[in-house]
Amino acid sequence: MLHSFLLAGQSNMAGRGFLKEVPMICNERIKVQRNGKWQIMMEPINYDRPFAGVGPSASFAAAWCRKNKDQEIGLIPCAEGGSSLDDWSVDGPLFEHAILQAKLAKTSSKLEGILWHQGENECSSGLSKRYHEKFSKIVEAFRRELNEPELPIIIGGIGSYLSSGFLGQYFPEHSEVNEALLEFAEKEKNCYFATASGLTPNPDGIHLNAVSQRIFGFRYFEAYVKRNHVLEPLEGEENAVTIFSERPLTKTEKSAILDKQFAGGEISIEEYQLQLELNQ
Amino acid sequence: MLHSFLLAGQSNMAGRGFLKEVPMICNERIKVQRNGKWQIMMEPINYDRPFAGVGPSASFAAAWCRKNKDQEIGLIPCAEGGSSLDDWSVDGPLFEHAILQAKLAKTSSKLEGILWHQGENECSSGLSKRYHEKFSKIVEAFRRELNEPELPIIIGGIGSYLSSGFLGQYFPEHSEVNEALLEFAEKEKNCYFATASGLTPNPDGIHLNAVSQRIFGFRYFEAYVKRNHVLEPLEGEENAVTIFSERPLTKTEKSAILDKQFAGGEISIEEYQLQLELNQ
Repeated sequence: MLHSFLLAGQSNMAGRGFLKEVPMICNERIKVQRNGKWQIMMEPINYDRPFAGVGPSASFAAAWCRKNKDQEIGLIPCAEGGSSLDDWSVDGPLFEHAILQAKLAKTSSKLEGILWHQGENECSSGLSKRYHEKFSKIVEAFRRELNEPELPIIIGGIGSYLSSGFLGQYFPEHSEVNEALLEFAEKEKNCYFATASGLTPNPDGIHLNAVSQRIFGFRYFEAYVKRNHVLEPLEGEENAVTIFSERPLTKTEKSAILDKQFAGGEISIEEYQLQLELNQ
Repeated sequence: MLHSFLLAGQSNMAGRGFLKEVPMICNERIKVQRNGKWQIMMEPINYDRPFAGVGPSASFAAAWCRKNKDQEIGLIPCAEGGSSLDDWSVDGPLFEHAILQAKLAKTSSKLEGILWHQGENECSSGLSKRYHEKFSKIVEAFRRELNEPELPIIIGGIGSYLSSGFLGQYFPEHSEVNEALLEFAEKEKNCYFATASGLTPNPDGIHLNAVSQRIFGFRYFEAYVKRNHVLEPLEGEENAVTIFSERPLTKTEKSAILDKQFAGGEISIEEYQLQLELNQ
């Protein structure tokens, strides 16, 4: 039985890290749900925009696989760039879509948690003060609609860099949002916080870069597996970037990568056939 | 009110044409549904695989916009690479997922039709003989579940090149499948056929290349708008490839393209800011 996790929130959960900046993650025990079916995960996982990239869930899943040797994990991508808590209100399309996806996933997996990252859109106009109230309703509705009253929610912090970028003026309340996120995790049952402390952005000053997303995924996993808040960078977390090279690829993984390269026009038919043969 | 179309079937509906081989299509009146919400369409539209590319729906939508001057079209991507008619059976996840997506879309659009392309998976083992029987059940269920008894279904033919590629031995019944698709469209109400005659594949010999997909989209549109079968290539259909340059980009479109380039790491922050300013 697959163990599944719902990805929800805004762009830094969907992922905007540049794929070219980190080694890929490919593990046949990591699946992603598309069209209601599970397939081997390839990044980008959460294709909410044509520029979706590296988010925290790939390295989260890789860390999960390292811990759970013979089991499979499935990711359910539902994060939406630029979405506010109001956009996630329980009568809106984002929430409805996420519930539908999670219910579909539940027909063939055990839902183990929600990875949540949202807050950049609550960083002005006093919105940070209302985080707890609005998010409580969403969390409660997720658990109720999915019939999972104890479902763990892992909540990532937002970047402390947010006020320094070229759009920094839009994020005056980023510290308050981070406090609200941590406080929420501390007060609500089965909610755990993973800090974004020390993580760095793309040139836009908003989106976590690929290296930071790999590290962030390890922090999410630590919070999940320890059932505790991660308030500081982890020892050895930089290894998240090279997790790909920890073990040799299986035949299935090599074949999936070759298919991607050939179907995407990156390698010739001759090269594809040769490599397939070598992979026998 | 947006006019929406559901995309269903297998990989040639999802699209495997190489994006780099054709000019982009960008029109702010073409939307795509992701996470239950509409956004400006950028290719790939139907992200069923990490190598999804150009399918027929982009140029279908562009042709639709040329005909419907002040209206908007929305695409609902649900096609799944490698899927058989059995995979699309009405008790399976592909069908359920497509119904959920279409129902979500119907809360904010008028569903106008289904673009269907499937058949490569029915090209052996006598499966072509059962196309009509199996597909009837799917079409009937789509119309019933969506409460659209008259919903038009546009059905594309499969490539006559299929038996010539390096995997040609898997497609002995491609002519029979094409006959079954045409016969289905002729016999069933509000079903229209668009031929793939003369279209050409990628080096894999299976997937329509990008230029052919642009042309195919025009044929789908012709079948839809004329409510008739398209049995021959259309006069002037090669213009499908250059539809992008028929009119200048709007500010919204320029801005969407700049966002994609910057968020995807293709242009620097300086270039992005400069171009945004020039676009004011």
